[in-house]
Amino acid sequence: MTIRPVTFLTDFGYDDEYQGACRLVIAGIDPRIRVIDLTHGIAPGDVRRGALALAAAVAHAPPAVHLAVVDPGVGTDRRAVVLACGEHHLVGPDNGLLPPAAEALGGVDAAFDVSSSPLRTGGGETFHGRDLFSPVAAALAAGAAPGELGTELDPAGLVPLDLPEPEPAGGALTGHVLFLDRYGNAALDVRPSHLEGLVPPGAEAVRLGAGGREATVRLGRAFGDVPPGEIVLLPDSTGRLAIAVNRGDAAARLGLRPDDEVVIAPVASGG
Amino acid sequence: MTIRPVTFLTDFGYDDEYQGACRLVIAGIDPRIRVIDLTHGIAPGDVRRGALALAAAVAHAPPAVHLAVVDPGVGTDRRAVVLACGEHHLVGPDNGLLPPAAEALGGVDAAFDVSSSPLRTGGGETFHGRDLFSPVAAALAAGAAPGELGTELDPAGLVPLDLPEPEPAGGALTGHVLFLDRYGNAALDVRPSHLEGLVPPGAEAVRLGAGGREATVRLGRAFGDVPPGEIVLLPDSTGRLAIAVNRGDAAARLGLRPDDEVVIAPVASGG
Amino acid sequence: MTIRPVTFLTDFGYDDEYQGACRLVIAGIDPRIRVIDLTHGIAPGDVRRGALALAAAVAHAPPAVHLAVVDPGVGTDRRAVVLACGEHHLVGPDNGLLPPAAEALGGVDAAFDVSSSPLRTGGGETFHGRDLFSPVAAALAAGAAPGELGTELDPAGLVPLDLPEPEPAGGALTGHVLFLDRYGNAALDVRPSHLEGLVPPGAEAVRLGAGGREATVRLGRAFGDVPPGEIVLLPDSTGRLAIAVNRGDAAARLGLRPDDEVVIAPVASGG
Repeated sequence: MTIRPVTFLTDFGYDDEYQGACRLVIAGIDPRIRVIDLTHGIAPGDVRRGALALAAAVAHAPPAVHLAVVDPGVGTDRRAVVLACGEHHLVGPDNGLLPPAAEALGGVDAAFDVSSSPLRTGGGETFHGRDLFSPVAAALAAGAAPGELGTELDPAGLVPLDLPEPEPAGGALTGHVLFLDRYGNAALDVRPSHLEGLVPPGAEAVRLGAGGREATVRLGRAFGDVPPGEIVLLPDSTGRLAIAVNRGDAAARLGLRPDDEVVIAPVASGG
Repeated sequence: MTIRPVTFLTDFGYDDEYQGACRLVIAGIDPRIRVIDLTHGIAPGDVRRGALALAAAVAHAPPAVHLAVVDPGVGTDRRAVVLACGEHHLVGPDNGLLPPAAEALGGVDAAFDVSSSPLRTGGGETFHGRDLFSPVAAALAAGAAPGELGTELDPAGLVPLDLPEPEPAGGALTGHVLFLDRYGNAALDVRPSHLEGLVPPGAEAVRLGAGGREATVRLGRAFGDVPPGEIVLLPDSTGRLAIAVNRGDAAARLGLRPDDEVVIAPVASGG
Repeated sequence: MTIRPVTFLTDFGYDDEYQGACRLVIAGIDPRIRVIDLTHGIAPGDVRRGALALAAAVAHAPPAVHLAVVDPGVGTDRRAVVLACGEHHLVGPDNGLLPPAAEALGGVDAAFDVSSSPLRTGGGETFHGRDLFSPVAAALAAGAAPGELGTELDPAGLVPLDLPEPEPAGGALTGHVLFLDRYGNAALDVRPSHLEGLVPPGAEAVRLGAGGREATVRLGRAFGDVPPGEIVLLPDSTGRLAIAVNRGDAAARLGLRPDDEVVIAPVASGG
């Protein structure tokens, strides 16, 4: 049995020892397990950003156990689950955090409720990342079958992630800011395919309404397609459209926040 | 001889290459040594938070060398020490950083002054983390005995960590905020055992004076024991009581700071 | 063929999954490759700080592949390069990020343009860290020769790092702040050797003009050479002079910023 690595994504931040305690629990179960950090900088309780970051990362992963903990409902009756997706397992709370990653991995083959796993340690209700999810992830990485750790459940009953969807409206498309990254790029719920039929094939610019302003902006592929300081709308590294400023911070420039509406329309002919 | 992992906790932060330089020194001594990060986000020079984070993490560790550097006195005559605790070694400055972790590991079996270790490199007095502590930790992890790296010292002479203690006062208990975590939870120097005799067994609430306000708050076990936005007093993941807000930030809400006094009293009968 | 580790330095920050995606790409190419994080906290696009951090770290590295991505020109015609330096390879954009590290490793033996490497994946122009630099670094770590991944180029044509230089002026020396670290220490472009002939051998203090103030400050070796809260000018862990405050933050105290001018002069005799 090959040991798989454990990838690790949380909202634990970097100021406390929380991620370290989980790593020690994993190392204590099997010192051969390699932990690959994705990020621990998800904003506290931001399940959406955690889910999208996890999905973006696992799309590039070799077979692994993906341990994800953004868990504002820890200690309530929300379930702890394992999702089997091909040669991957996802481990985390049943709050919407895991389904986009499962989809990126080809869908859920089987799901398990591990809330009452015999591997759970301690009696506390504030740190299931350490006391439940880490032991479960380590056991899976070392070769345990999820059925040994919990009971099978119907994947149709998993809590989905709540995401906005772009809406066509009168020759334009109203999309939404999903999140802002550290560069100030604003990821949208709009993909290039959404623009088909809305803007002409090969269009080099669109009208963009965002942050209370409207302007004609370049439809590009690289930040450098516009001069430094200019706005560009381009596919980001996951294929979504993002509003960016070359060598600048679009979120700060336009005052963008998650869930803000963004309107995309064709440039008026002759305009 | 088995290679033990090196756990790694510092106040070096994440903006500079300081933690990376230490990892490279360790890898250069023996590439088989695995480094397990606990945190590098301890506030600069905050020996107390470093000591409590280290103690909380090592309680879950398999046999390891624990390298901890929060060292505002680097280059002065403060000693560099190794503490042997069962199958663990603690490596760091003699400034209070290590004793709580030693206690969590069952106490100090032997202590060594490694200030003048032959492993020390460079001649600088600003980065003993790289030039002294990392080489010592790596050598221990690879199998060296601490007596080869320094001279034995009397553990009774180690600098203790200065911590507040809760004080009973007229039917109430005055505790203190030890630290605030990234979620805004305020860890107190009060444990549930301190409440015995003060509040009735099975009490579901206490009077809590904190941040200039006084209120009746729930004594819970999980954040979700109160509605979102409400305050709860609950045991944290180390067994200390903490003031938290369900899906909120107690430190921001109550304006709490480390060392703030917190008064806990029973709810008046009939009140 | 021995697998070398990959060291990893970026401006990706810790809030997004970007560093994690790169780690997964590397693990997918060869799971035996060990990734050693230097830092991912370089300010967005700060090529200078990235270059100096990389150079400071690799000076302590065993043979390795050093993957560095601070790449504000991603998607433009800036080249992607591999520099061979003894038993080390440097991988990153040709924008000044790598040359100081190459110098710290003894100079460039050969250089390669890998912009069109067959290892490149995806078709995007926003995340060459994941799609180009990580595959190239992993292949090198696993034993590939750089000539298999790109075409040789003349090292003389590499983009150099733009750095200020201290200038003597009328019995004084005008230096510059290179960067501020997380402790608020201000690293200067001045080395102790620059003071020879300017201040007497064994001088214990200098006149320091910085942040709009001028004062006599201690020339020391350790932060603790001055009382807490006092300014000291001392060699930092790379051998440069730095302005520091014992147990304090010099950058905040003096309002220092990168590129600020700093004037160092001898203490007037009899003054």
